[in-house]
Amino acid sequence: MEKEVSIGLLGLGVVGSGVAQLIENYQDDLKHQLGCGVRVKSVLVRNLEKARSYDIDHSILTTNCDDVLNDPDINVVVEVMGGIEEARKYILQAFQAKKHVITANKDLIALYGPELEAAANENECDLFYEASVGGGIPLLRGLSDGLVSDRIQQVMGIVNGTTNYILTKMDVDGTSYEDALKEAQELGFAEADPTADVEGLDAARKMVILARLSFLTNVELDDVEVEGISNLSLTDLQYGKQLDYSMKLIGFANRTNDHHIEVSVQPTFLSNKHPLASVTDEYNAVYINGEAVGETMFYGPGAGSLPTATAVMSDVVEAIKNMRLGVNGKKFVKPRFQKELTPMDQRYSQFYLRLHVKDEVGAFALISELFHQMGISFERILQKPSNKDELAEIVVVTHETSLAKFKDSLAKLRELYVVENVESFFRVEGDAK
Amino acid sequence: MEKEVSIGLLGLGVVGSGVAQLIENYQDDLKHQLGCGVRVKSVLVRNLEKARSYDIDHSILTTNCDDVLNDPDINVVVEVMGGIEEARKYILQAFQAKKHVITANKDLIALYGPELEAAANENECDLFYEASVGGGIPLLRGLSDGLVSDRIQQVMGIVNGTTNYILTKMDVDGTSYEDALKEAQELGFAEADPTADVEGLDAARKMVILARLSFLTNVELDDVEVEGISNLSLTDLQYGKQLDYSMKLIGFANRTNDHHIEVSVQPTFLSNKHPLASVTDEYNAVYINGEAVGETMFYGPGAGSLPTATAVMSDVVEAIKNMRLGVNGKKFVKPRFQKELTPMDQRYSQFYLRLHVKDEVGAFALISELFHQMGISFERILQKPSNKDELAEIVVVTHETSLAKFKDSLAKLRELYVVENVESFFRVEGDAK
Repeated sequence: MEKEVSIGLLGLGVVGSGVAQLIENYQDDLKHQLGCGVRVKSVLVRNLEKARSYDIDHSILTTNCDDVLNDPDINVVVEVMGGIEEARKYILQAFQAKKHVITANKDLIALYGPELEAAANENECDLFYEASVGGGIPLLRGLSDGLVSDRIQQVMGIVNGTTNYILTKMDVDGTSYEDALKEAQELGFAEADPTADVEGLDAARKMVILARLSFLTNVELDDVEVEGISNLSLTDLQYGKQLDYSMKLIGFANRTNDHHIEVSVQPTFLSNKHPLASVTDEYNAVYINGEAVGETMFYGPGAGSLPTATAVMSDVVEAIKNMRLGVNGKKFVKPRFQKELTPMDQRYSQFYLRLHVKDEVGAFALISELFHQMGISFERILQKPSNKDELAEIVVVTHETSLAKFKDSLAKLRELYVVENVESFFRVEGDAK
Repeated sequence: MEKEVSIGLLGLGVVGSGVAQLIENYQDDLKHQLGCGVRVKSVLVRNLEKARSYDIDHSILTTNCDDVLNDPDINVVVEVMGGIEEARKYILQAFQAKKHVITANKDLIALYGPELEAAANENECDLFYEASVGGGIPLLRGLSDGLVSDRIQQVMGIVNGTTNYILTKMDVDGTSYEDALKEAQELGFAEADPTADVEGLDAARKMVILARLSFLTNVELDDVEVEGISNLSLTDLQYGKQLDYSMKLIGFANRTNDHHIEVSVQPTFLSNKHPLASVTDEYNAVYINGEAVGETMFYGPGAGSLPTATAVMSDVVEAIKNMRLGVNGKKFVKPRFQKELTPMDQRYSQFYLRLHVKDEVGAFALISELFHQMGISFERILQKPSNKDELAEIVVVTHETSLAKFKDSLAKLRELYVVENVESFFRVEGDAK
């Protein structure tokens, strides 16, 4: 049996503790697969005295990053501390010291992935980040290795468990947004400050990573259009039910045949026939449409100590195998295409639209004439007298149309004197065409 | 750019044509990833003159296997001819000639996987078979690499598209088994002789492969209990609907904590809350429960020319990358545990049972007393007068119990004079415990 491989951890939060626990519990399994033992030699923490849920040998804890980054015994550094600048500095330093790096840090990879990949490559080191998207789901590996000889056309992801939990509560139980958020916070699915989750930023970062891998182009966070769920109204979700839709926060990464791409995150009405519609509670899932393979979906826990640690460990095992074979630093994402964003007039979908209109004869005729002139037809129409005096509520679902045309129509609609207010509109996906 | 890599195909059926087509269509993509071109140099076929749906250069077709197996230019052999003995002989010959082998042949791998892996290993060759289970779904890679540091406890698979299509038609549309099978045959989802599919043999072979990878033990086809769908009655499916169950042909691979395993294929009532319940039509999906990761699921097309070819190509790309790195033959399944099958008294599940009983006072009391004595309690009971004279129909769903106990109870039940006939019984899975 070969010499034990020493690992250094940067951080000992939920994921870090999970990694330490898996290495301890599954030592025999790791030895069987790797032909050598694996041990955690040093762990960088902020506070040596902090009480920890996982019982770890305190002598390996340190507050000095050099104990991890400058220890020649340590071959693999696992960054699970989170945050941006410090993590970036440490990782670059690890590459300088020819250490392989595994990270679960989606924020860092979304912002500095290309820089870090280049540094890894220069130093012939591995940089893996399976845990950065979809927690325990072996997703990036499926995308980059499993579908390697296909052309990915569309990725649709439920990549944020917090918002999926909240939306499930709202959709299934009719809970208000505020109560559902509170419940998620009590269960530990949402942070005290839930902004990054509920405003879609967390999902946007993950979609950047997925889009880069899928389309081999340098997608950046600024390229992503983001809309969160904090303004959703139960009224729309109830209409959604009548229409056989589920409301989901969907991250889209779409590519046209001429390599234009769209990356966005937005609350979306999904037909209940779509495989993603049945993904409820805090679960994550990513649906991938490839030119050759067709539809595939990966489903699983998007977060949690042990699930995420499982993904980190799959990377650690790969890095150690590569060490044994002497082939580290060979697997990285080579950008291939110039980035060009899909213009709005080439982004097609159906739309759901809810309006308050004056309750007078011919109001609906005016509206439908406007859409007709814009070349947009309706698939579904629901109309009911509103509670508000003199106003009727109209819900329409359009046939597929371009985003540009839909936005033009909205602007024109707002000028119609019969239209009191455009209450809401959402992208609709997954209906049979 | 390095020298082009030459591939030899054994077979040019639907999958072989798909592989040739992907290599031709995605040549630029392959070059980008591999740093070298890939071409199909020779294709072994039975009949040179046969009309083919895919337009291929006829000069590379041959009926002489030596043109593939003894050509020193060919580094990678793709076996997509099917069948057992001939395919096995050719693959062993390919390893002798130090060629890497990719196969989509589940029957062969289920029967001779360990022998072939040993031969590959001996000759420092790669043997990959991603396409053998779940068609285009990157499933085996997810299991063996993605969940590498987890302990898989349960695999539940819808791994046969033909039967899933038939069951969907029966379940959703109320089509009879015979009509659904005919429809599947007309659509090309079922063979003229559907036996291997509808009797569960195809699924059993795939479960052998999944169980080996999941549990690192030498599962063989004889270890699998197999029951097909050809005797299913619409009556049971209708009761299933009332109980909020979907009928699926499920392949199980379960491991107890002491490494006892159960591998079986059987028609199963799945709670509609289970992620597999929403997998309809010809789609496949595999649900995996790992000690650390929890629940994950992989979903996608289980068959089809291009989807399956995508999986084959992911293996081809991996073999070529390994060639470039000089590390072929390092990845194979090392059995680790003695195989021990789980005895029937340690195999727990719920059961659905439908009985015809004499329509007399106290009949149900007798039956329920019998189950009570056996220590089996009921979760649900449905009773209705049957059309047949003097007989009532009773459906019960038990709480979780052992298979041994349930079978004992069935035997005793058949001896009760009030029980006219045990019409059917099925395993029930996915209900909240």
